[in-house]
Formats: sequence, C-alpha cells, structure tokens
Amino acid sequence: RIDSARLWDSLMEMATIGPGIAGGNNRQTLTDDDARGRALFQQWCLDAGCTMGVDTMGNMFATRAGAEDLPPVYMGSHLDTQPTGGKYDGVLGVLGGLEVLRSMNDAGIRTRHPIVLVNWTNEEGTRYAPAMLASGVFAGIHTQDYAYGRVDAEGKAFGDELARIGWVGDEPVGARKIHAMLELHIEQGPILEAEGKEIGVVTHGQGLWWLQVTLTGRDAHTGSTPMNMRVNAGLGMARIIELVHRIAMDHQPGAVGAVGQANVYPNSRNVIPGRAVFTIDFRSPDLAKLTAMRERLEDEAPAIAAELGLGIDIEPVGHFDPVTFDPGLVTVVRDAAERLGYSHMDIVSGAGHDACWINRVAPTVMVMCPCVDGLSHNEAEEISPEWAAAGTDVLLHAVLEVAGV
Amino acid sequence: RIDSARLWDSLMEMATIGPGIAGGNNRQTLTDDDARGRALFQQWCLDAGCTMGVDTMGNMFATRAGAEDLPPVYMGSHLDTQPTGGKYDGVLGVLGGLEVLRSMNDAGIRTRHPIVLVNWTNEEGTRYAPAMLASGVFAGIHTQDYAYGRVDAEGKAFGDELARIGWVGDEPVGARKIHAMLELHIEQGPILEAEGKEIGVVTHGQGLWWLQVTLTGRDAHTGSTPMNMRVNAGLGMARIIELVHRIAMDHQPGAVGAVGQANVYPNSRNVIPGRAVFTIDFRSPDLAKLTAMRERLEDEAPAIAAELGLGIDIEPVGHFDPVTFDPGLVTVVRDAAERLGYSHMDIVSGAGHDACWINRVAPTVMVMCPCVDGLSHNEAEEISPEWAAAGTDVLLHAVLEVAGV
Ligand SMILES: NC(=O)NCCC(=O)O
Ligand SMILES: NC(=O)NCCC(=O)O
Repeated sequence: RIDSARLWDSLMEMATIGPGIAGGNNRQTLTDDDARGRALFQQWCLDAGCTMGVDTMGNMFATRAGAEDLPPVYMGSHLDTQPTGGKYDGVLGVLGGLEVLRSMNDAGIRTRHPIVLVNWTNEEGTRYAPAMLASGVFAGIHTQDYAYGRVDAEGKAFGDELARIGWVGDEPVGARKIHAMLELHIEQGPILEAEGKEIGVVTHGQGLWWLQVTLTGRDAHTGSTPMNMRVNAGLGMARIIELVHRIAMDHQPGAVGAVGQANVYPNSRNVIPGRAVFTIDFRSPDLAKLTAMRERLEDEAPAIAAELGLGIDIEPVGHFDPVTFDPGLVTVVRDAAERLGYSHMDIVSGAGHDACWINRVAPTVMVMCPCVDGLSHNEAEEISPEWAAAGTDVLLHAVLEVAGV
Repeated sequence: RIDSARLWDSLMEMATIGPGIAGGNNRQTLTDDDARGRALFQQWCLDAGCTMGVDTMGNMFATRAGAEDLPPVYMGSHLDTQPTGGKYDGVLGVLGGLEVLRSMNDAGIRTRHPIVLVNWTNEEGTRYAPAMLASGVFAGIHTQDYAYGRVDAEGKAFGDELARIGWVGDEPVGARKIHAMLELHIEQGPILEAEGKEIGVVTHGQGLWWLQVTLTGRDAHTGSTPMNMRVNAGLGMARIIELVHRIAMDHQPGAVGAVGQANVYPNSRNVIPGRAVFTIDFRSPDLAKLTAMRERLEDEAPAIAAELGLGIDIEPVGHFDPVTFDPGLVTVVRDAAERLGYSHMDIVSGAGHDACWINRVAPTVMVMCPCVDGLSHNEAEEISPEWAAAGTDVLLHAVLEVAGV
C-alpha cells in the first residue's frame, strides 16, 4: 500500500502554487505558476532517484530505471489547472504516480520495465484550445507547428509562452516508445460517489466536439436605434446557447452540451453588441449522437443568425471520437481493485484526458476515484485522502503487474 | 453663420486623441486620453478669450463674459466616448459650442448674459454606470460620494481616477446658476436622415431603466456533469436576454430593450458557467411602458432563474423618467431653424443626454442633426460637415436669442 499521508502532503504542497480565490487553484498552463509547479515536481522526481527528460512541447518525463532494456510503462496526467480549478484534477494523477515511485523505492522494488512518470503540458485547454494539446502532438494528432501557433485570449502564442517560462526541452515529441500508459484521475462526475464505489475502472471515454462561433452584427445605440434596425449579435448568441441546450436534451441519455465561454463586443451597457464570440462543447460516448449533435447545430444555428441578419462563422477547435481503452489493461486495473478489496465499477469517462490521445499510440487505461458532489472545474472540487489512497494503491498494483517485478 | 471649415478642423483634431481601431474613438472617461482631450479643449477655450472653471466632479466650464451681471446661458455636451465610439457623439455639442464662441468673437458680438461652454464628465456611462453621472450630481440626482465610489470593471473608483488624471477642480458641484442650457447633439438614430431634415427640434427625451443582473449557479465540468445536475448561469443569461427582447417587442411602438454587457464566469470552454453578470437597458418616451417593461422583467426573470436553480439579483443602476424640454426654448430653437432656412422637425431623443438632468434644475433644450444610417456607439458613426454646420448655426442663433445682444 502507498503512503497516504505523504501523498496528501504533496497534493497540499503543490496546491500552494497558483492558489485560487476560493480554496482551489489557478495554475493555468505556461504561466509563471505553471513553471513553479514544474520546478517543484522536477525536484521531487530527482529526489526519488529519477532522471528527467523534457520534450519540445514541454512534456516532462521522469524515468525510474527498470531491470531490463524494455519500453517503459507510463503513469501520469497534468499539473495545469482551470482558471478557477480544483487541487486534484490532473494533479492526483501526477502526484499519485510520484507516490507510486516513492513507495517502490521504500519497498526496494525493481521492475522489469522502466517506469516513466509524465506531466503533460496544457491538458485543460482553457488558455490554449484544444485540450490535451501536448499529448495530442505526442500522439500525432496535431503538428507541433499547429500547437506552437495557438494563441490565448491576449494573443500570446503557445510556442512563445513555453519558451518564456523556460520549458522547451530538447527531446523530439512522440519519439518515445510506450509499453503501456495508466492515468489515475478524479472522476469529475457524480457516479462513483452516488454508487458508493471507491474505484472506477475506466472502459471508455466520451467523444467531444468543440466549436467556436462568431456572430457579426452591427454595434449601435441601445436607446436611439429602433428595434427593427438592430443587428444584435448578443441576441443571436442567446438563441444559440438555448439551441445547444435543446440539442443536448434531445439526445438524452448519454449526451451533454453547453456554452462555456461567452463574449460580446464592445461589451458596453448602451451598445447593442455588434459581435459575439462563444464556444460550444458537445460530448457523448456514442459516436452517432456526437455527430448528430454537431450536425444539428451546424444546420440550425445559421438559420438563427440569418433571421437576425447576423453573419455566422462556426469553427471546429477540438475533436476526438469516443475512446475504447485497452481491454487487457482494463482487466489488470479491475483485478488490482478486486485484490486490494476496494469496491469498484466499470465507468465511462465524461471528461477528456491525455490517456484518450495516448490510447491511439499505445495500450492505455485509466483509474478513477470519486470526488465530492461530482464537482470539478470548480475551486470547491474535493476528494477524501482515503479515495486518493485507494486510487493510488490500485495504480501501484496495476503498474507492478504491467511492468513486471 | 458659423465657420464650417474651422468647426470641422476642430472635430478632426479632437478625434486624433484616443483613436479607435476602426476610424472612430476610444476616449473613455477618466483615462489618460480623456485628460489629453480636456487639455486641448481648455487651450482652445483660453485662446477664445474665456476663463476656465472646474468643479469637483471634473466638469469644465469655459465662461465668455456678458455685458450684464446675469446668470449665464449654457451650451455644451461631453468629450468622453464609448470604447468603440464615434467622433461626434457628444464632441459635436462641445466643439459646436466652441465654434459659436469663436463666431461671436469674429463678429464682435457682446451678449447681455455671459455664455458658458461646458464639458460634462462621464456622460457615456460605459466605464462608470450610470450615464450622465456628473451632470446628474450637478442636478442633485446623485451625491458626489455616490459618484466617487462608482467602480469600473477593474475595480478602480471614479474619485481615484478623476484625481489620477488631475481634473478634480475646486468649484463645488451644482453651485452655479443657469439661465438656460442648450445642447447640440447628433441624433444617434435614423429619423432625421429618413425624413430628409437638417435639424431636429428636441421636444422630449425617452426615459430609461438600467438594470444589472447577477445569476449564481455552480461551476462544473462540461463533460462529466450530467445535464440534470447542472446549474448553468450562462443558460439563464441566454433566456433573460431573450426575455428582454420579447418584452421590448411586446411594447412596440415606442419602446426598446437590449442587453449590452454580458459576462460569464469563469469563461472557460469546459466549465459550465457558475456566474453570469449582464446589463439591461429599457427605454421609452412613455412612462407607463417604461415602468411596465421593468416590472415584467422583475416578474419573469426570477422564474427563469428558479427553473434552472439559479440565484438571481437584479440591481437598478440607472434611471430617468421621460423628459419634457422647456417649451419656450423649444420654440426658440424651432424659430432659429426656420429663420435660417433649415428643414426641421420635432423629435424625441432616443438617447439620454446631460441636458436630461440639467432640465431638472434649469430651462433646457436640445438641437439635433442627422447621422448617417442612424448609426452611433459605433466607430463608423458619420455626419456631413453641412449637417454639423446647420446644427451649429441653429445653436448660435438660439443662444443669441436667449442671451440677448
Ligand atoms: N479532465 C479534464 O477536465 N480535462 C479537460 C478536457 C476536458 O474538457 O475534458
Ligand atoms: N448620447 C448618449 O449616447 N448618451 C449615453 C447615455 C445613453 O445611453 O443614452
């Protein structure tokens, strides 16, 4: 079993970097706080006897040598957070992995395969869309040029910001061989807690479409412009937010949809918005539903815009198909939970994860633990030390099984 | 007649201060560019032989002495602009007034009453709500403490910013006697152009309600949170934007309504917004309609919020009743337009103006000139030099009539 107190201490220490305003974290990717979190993580890995490699996307790989010259077994997740994020989303997967390494050291365990613990750059996708950007480049989904050219809301490019914080490594991205990858993560949904299970054995992941919509109308005075002369981009946005909700509701169960970012311009009390820019997030574990939701949006939103005289542009900014994790690894995780005596159930991941991309290039699986009220992407995100320990125990045993002792 | 070329030159020179991004201006109140605009205006007034007084709200009063010790006749408007504003909204009223003073100088005219040309602080109300803040304090509608305590989106207080740009004067606000006030302004709507009239004789002004709505839900993950567990403040905002539109449409003709500012938090692609803050602008020249619109909003918006599980707070941030301008001054303006041979019509102002507040404490009237396509609060706002000259001619003759020669 892992050292639950040590794991919790590390989680709490990492949470002091980039504190939020309500008990959580704001440690967005490629910020100064991200750099501080990386430095602390690197120090911990070196202290645990690992070597550190960094690739040109800033992905960090801490290696614990194996007994044989075999491709490594990977663990890990991400240390970046949402702007008003929690202390565990991603972080548990990285620091749980660290605790696995420390526990192996304590027990003097030597694995056949080397073990690599990874911190993937920009998983959250808030500052730079799409999410899981660097694992996506690793898996060959995106080019590095595409990733470097992504810009944040202030127009700062990913490549420039990665260089600014000093984490452009020298390893080419995606060159590494991966024997298997195991990602521990909090569920970020309510199912495990509701079902009273300590462990989620993740068999599948939802697919996703991210769209960005720009509506173009005409700035005009809210007082002196007659109703019939308005070309109101804010009203168009409102109608499409409602449409997104209706589409998701019409595809129940097993589908979700929402608008997370919404901006009108010039955003002035007495100006009818001449422009609106907002994002759409559709997900389903069912590819047919996922596709149908996007198609209906692309069908109906232009009609809403046309009725109001608005120009419309719908740009896809992120996509992955539903994921089926490696059946052999799923069995390994389920068996480990069973052997350790933790209650468990099979589950579908509602969120996207780096494991979803790595699954394209190597056998991959995820282990989940519950979170309070299913709440995530919220500073109030909470888990219990017991849940963290259970997930990390399962991760340890599954990794030992896959890496061989 | 005034000097049309000189007027136009001054308008263009002022427009070089705080240029916008699309040919208009961003010279928001109490910014460094506002200070630059004030300095230029002050210099022009001194060059025209005026003395300058400034009150503790930063209102600027340039006085041209009269022959007798009588209360002055006021002209003027405002030099602040929207973030993406035009070159004429407000500015024409100030620089048209300046051209009136210069023309009087050229003609060697001595008036019985002194003439005062005023630049009112923060008319636009974008950076600091409500609009017409400083003329409102002058008229005793707001206290100076209230005004000083208003904060912008970055939390900077009005009083601090006024001090920062160095325009806190020593005159107590509202102490001045006003014989009459005449404000020249562009229409900001389409009526005069559509009717082919050069001059709008403003008999009334619309009343207004500004409300600010805050919806409180719960930040949560867009992917892993089931539809029935969401408390989506962005969806609530969308429904209330639609409600505002429907209320305005149901009160046609003679009523308008729109949402100008709309913000969701944390404004992240994969976070269901846990908070939304947006503004509502209802207007009508008919007090019963204006009141009915606000009441219906306050009746129906809480039901929308309740259905989604959202908390709602509706804060009134600006209000004035419909305005009836001074009938005697209205006649003076109409006669001046007639005498000068300009086509004219009576009109109701769709926008709020400093004249609306000053009308509470002194006889007040407005003169309007057309603007292209009725477009205002848009960088593309445009007028012709001929329209500007016609309005300023009428202002000159009306002021001479009221001030006595
Ligand atoms: N796990 C997680 O929150 N990832 C961010 C990408 C997503 O929105 O699913
Ligand atoms: N004239 C003008 O645009 N004033 C700003 C206040 C308003 O929105 O009416």
